[in-house]
Amino acid sequence: MRMKTNTKTVRISIIGFGYVGAGVAEVIRRKREEIARKYGLNTKIVCIADLNGIFIDENGLNEAELLKLKTGDMNWEKPEDMTTLDVIKDVEHEVMVETTPTNVVNGEPGLTHIITALESGRHVVTSNKGPLALEYSRLMKLAAERGKELKFEATVGGAMPIISLLRENLAGNGILSIQGILNGTCNYILTRMAEEGLPYEHVLKEAQELGLAEAEPSKDVTGIDTAVKLVILANSVFNLNATYKDVEVAGIAEITPDALKLADDAGYVIKLIGEVDRKGCLKVRPRLVPKDDPLNVSGTLNVATIKTDLAGDITVIGKGAGPIEAASAILSDIISIYNTSSGGDL
Amino acid sequence: MRMKTNTKTVRISIIGFGYVGAGVAEVIRRKREEIARKYGLNTKIVCIADLNGIFIDENGLNEAELLKLKTGDMNWEKPEDMTTLDVIKDVEHEVMVETTPTNVVNGEPGLTHIITALESGRHVVTSNKGPLALEYSRLMKLAAERGKELKFEATVGGAMPIISLLRENLAGNGILSIQGILNGTCNYILTRMAEEGLPYEHVLKEAQELGLAEAEPSKDVTGIDTAVKLVILANSVFNLNATYKDVEVAGIAEITPDALKLADDAGYVIKLIGEVDRKGCLKVRPRLVPKDDPLNVSGTLNVATIKTDLAGDITVIGKGAGPIEAASAILSDIISIYNTSSGGDL
Repeated sequence: MRMKTNTKTVRISIIGFGYVGAGVAEVIRRKREEIARKYGLNTKIVCIADLNGIFIDENGLNEAELLKLKTGDMNWEKPEDMTTLDVIKDVEHEVMVETTPTNVVNGEPGLTHIITALESGRHVVTSNKGPLALEYSRLMKLAAERGKELKFEATVGGAMPIISLLRENLAGNGILSIQGILNGTCNYILTRMAEEGLPYEHVLKEAQELGLAEAEPSKDVTGIDTAVKLVILANSVFNLNATYKDVEVAGIAEITPDALKLADDAGYVIKLIGEVDRKGCLKVRPRLVPKDDPLNVSGTLNVATIKTDLAGDITVIGKGAGPIEAASAILSDIISIYNTSSGGDL
Repeated sequence: MRMKTNTKTVRISIIGFGYVGAGVAEVIRRKREEIARKYGLNTKIVCIADLNGIFIDENGLNEAELLKLKTGDMNWEKPEDMTTLDVIKDVEHEVMVETTPTNVVNGEPGLTHIITALESGRHVVTSNKGPLALEYSRLMKLAAERGKELKFEATVGGAMPIISLLRENLAGNGILSIQGILNGTCNYILTRMAEEGLPYEHVLKEAQELGLAEAEPSKDVTGIDTAVKLVILANSVFNLNATYKDVEVAGIAEITPDALKLADDAGYVIKLIGEVDRKGCLKVRPRLVPKDDPLNVSGTLNVATIKTDLAGDITVIGKGAGPIEAASAILSDIISIYNTSSGGDL
């Protein structure tokens, strides 16, 4: 293992302090020493901004303060003369973590947060799908102009490292197409329907009771969430300038236990598959998947199969959701900004 | 996409010109323009050395010459006064690609090739498992001292990008353990035995006829090949100093169709699994795998499931063998030496 001898201070803001933002604070608390030791990065959370208010500590939150965040027990201030954008612009820091909720209509408030951070010379790491699904090219161009990184592993597949896998590990390959299950809620519903022979409405209700589907589940079950993630994949890998409106979308609400049974008898499962090829054809739809295909993963798992010109098919499977999982992707992105490919033994 | 404006010349030697070495020459031929365009790397193969002889062209082989290599139609020279080690030392180049056959007894000739290249100030990219399974720590220490990279994605899982995934993409995570199917021959045999109810000897013969098993298959079927790969994973991820002799190994020759049938009835398959945890416990043995586990992949596929502290389980699946697949991993390694994490849009 290469130990880092010079330590670099990385000051971080967290904009949006819901489950994922709080998860980021928590994983930084847990991993602080390890990150310092392995990567030579002294991570400090210097500001948090949320609808609740603003928290600034230019020395960085200490262990005790980070623990308090877990319980929500923090001294939010609601300064009348300071907005979230002021925090992004005026508090000195290197990396803005943007974890406000996804909005696929106009991308706000995340879009303005990201633009402001890049224009203020900050790297950006985000879990917010909206800005990337709507304004990918514009944001990447701005990041390049400012010489800053804009990283977004957490937007697709949660903890499943699909973006970095495509952009880095397979560098010697041309990517021909990507197919995947990018929504854990739909996969849970279809898995349970197939296993138990239960109708859609029944399993949806069960998923809602278990917290695996939202009370208003339409973004998931109509395929829109999958479409948004597919667009982010497509733009980042195929250099497209697509938005989620370019995707042909069908959801899972019409699938019956009978259809799943027929598929089963023939050696197939039905999965909601997002797919994109290098020509820019973007589709989300229920598809028959052979049972022994690597795309056949069950429960809330996400999966993507990448067709390459040299390496054949590469499949990656992981947990698609969860605040700690998303936070781990954000943390990996932060580390990768400062580490070249050869940096990190674990 | 970021186009590279400055082009850097990367002169490459290929030491060992069997299937994999020839595959490297072929993928560089196919991808040369693309690599220049995307990564700003002007790749030149300036020397090839093999038991057949030595080929040197300090200007780099051109397209026509690279095509000739495919057909074996090249003007090997057998200079009496120049050895392979002289080529490594004396021909100016940046990256040595070491693709001689694996030798797990003493690692030679690969071990000496790698040491010589690092001492001569060359980066090393290798598909040769022997040197890394026997002398991992020594080689990484030498590379670090000389400020050179030693990359080895092709040694484990062929085109499946397991090494870089573990070392880079999951940087924010602690790795708890790795379990995987790392030998495609064994996986093919067990898959066919289970599907057809055929005995081991029958399927082994079939695999040999199809070129999926070697005439002398003992390294594969006894689990030694899996053990060697496991040691490379373990050392590179857990910073161990293990050799393949530290692995508890059992192979697949004793597995009967009856055992596979019993497993099937209970919802399982039997797979040859290599596993290592952070405490350094290394095992290769046939194991029951639930049919819906991501480790249940069929045919010649390889798979690894990585247990992490934050992201949960991440699984990667890919083709474990094939000269072009291995060459694609070597090419990705070469590119990664010159590209930081943000380098490559594809």
